[in-house]
Amino acid sequence: MTTINQAQPGHFYAIGIGPGASDLLTVRAVALIESADIILSPQAEGTNRSLALKAIKPYLHGQDIQTINYQMKRDGQSTRERWQNVAQNVLTHCQAGKSVAMITIGDPLIFATTSYLLQALAEEMDPRHIQVVPGISAFQIAASRFHDALTLQEDRLLLMSATDLEAVEAALTNCETLVLYKAGGVIQELLNLLKKYQLLAAARLVSCAEQGKGDLAIDNLTDFNPSAMSYMTTMIIHCGHRNWQE
Amino acid sequence: MTTINQAQPGHFYAIGIGPGASDLLTVRAVALIESADIILSPQAEGTNRSLALKAIKPYLHGQDIQTINYQMKRDGQSTRERWQNVAQNVLTHCQAGKSVAMITIGDPLIFATTSYLLQALAEEMDPRHIQVVPGISAFQIAASRFHDALTLQEDRLLLMSATDLEAVEAALTNCETLVLYKAGGVIQELLNLLKKYQLLAAARLVSCAEQGKGDLAIDNLTDFNPSAMSYMTTMIIHCGHRNWQE
Repeated sequence: MTTINQAQPGHFYAIGIGPGASDLLTVRAVALIESADIILSPQAEGTNRSLALKAIKPYLHGQDIQTINYQMKRDGQSTRERWQNVAQNVLTHCQAGKSVAMITIGDPLIFATTSYLLQALAEEMDPRHIQVVPGISAFQIAASRFHDALTLQEDRLLLMSATDLEAVEAALTNCETLVLYKAGGVIQELLNLLKKYQLLAAARLVSCAEQGKGDLAIDNLTDFNPSAMSYMTTMIIHCGHRNWQE
Repeated sequence: MTTINQAQPGHFYAIGIGPGASDLLTVRAVALIESADIILSPQAEGTNRSLALKAIKPYLHGQDIQTINYQMKRDGQSTRERWQNVAQNVLTHCQAGKSVAMITIGDPLIFATTSYLLQALAEEMDPRHIQVVPGISAFQIAASRFHDALTLQEDRLLLMSATDLEAVEAALTNCETLVLYKAGGVIQELLNLLKKYQLLAAARLVSCAEQGKGDLAIDNLTDFNPSAMSYMTTMIIHCGHRNWQE
């Protein structure tokens, strides 16, 4: 098996570290983080905490940690410019023979700002010097709380952001399992929609799972009264099942 | 953080071990496998190899390995009966104070037969004695080969089996990223469909990634001539993008 366990000089690693618990990183992610020269740690502008950095704390022993501030604005142009600048910084380090690892909560390719960095690097770096390491995404840890299948047989799983409610409503009839990220900000609207489709009892909600503080896991939203909820709230709606045609 | 790292007496663990490479298990999965009394290893009937068992080989040191044969038939009734029997076996071991871990390639809740076992156990076991550990699913490792985002901004990701071609065709216009599992058996039909929708250049194909033998990763299907393909073939189709409404 051609597994590269050690970060290599001049290489960039986009590393998914899972939901936040230190033991939900893969063995590969740990090995690369432990051996990288420089670790880029994302931090939302206006906050002074990094969930990602906390998760990898057991694996730090003097690597150069560089904080990457990013804005939470929904502005594609300025987001891309921000990550172009980060890419230039990565290139400079890699050209100097350093190994650079960017850590990302969840998976680097699923609703992750790291994807912008990868897009910017793709134009300037040999793809063989870039490695993406997948991580456990929030919907997987959310589902694991309830022990029941996300998909079986011919089920379709649809994963999307909850912010566009028209698209959410359309999705209810286009899949068997609907997973909504960022459900916290529109929770009352979602509950109204679920009531309309008689799906309150088939919907589950998880906030901040495996992040080392009070989390929330509700397996039936029939009598749920929402209060202020985290941005990091995932809803799983079991709309139905498609069994094998036997 | 209330992380239980050691398998507990009388507990059952459904453990996702990722695509097949030994270093793509999570740290938690490794700790539970190393400390479990009994490990259930799934094996498709008529074969004599277990990809899952090979993946965890570095973590074995005398645990009791029990092979669970399962049929590859698309027969819901006999599948459920088979797993009811396995559940009885698990219960007997747990009641005797043993810890039991079932290993699953990928994630135990995404198109995994382990979900049937969890369904059968849910009727007879205290849910607090059952733990599901997510694993890296095939679509994540497939996407990681190409370094480009599965979802960004308002993109919808739809994950389904490729076997129902009518449903696949409908899905092309209901998501931005379509992931098809089990694409190997219907590869020519899928290529015809992609051609019809001018999506050949937007489709990628990965077989047997991270399984320690010759894998296949094709980033553009325009000139692709398929030969016999593995059952474990994943197709990623980038149908479009939904950007933020700025």
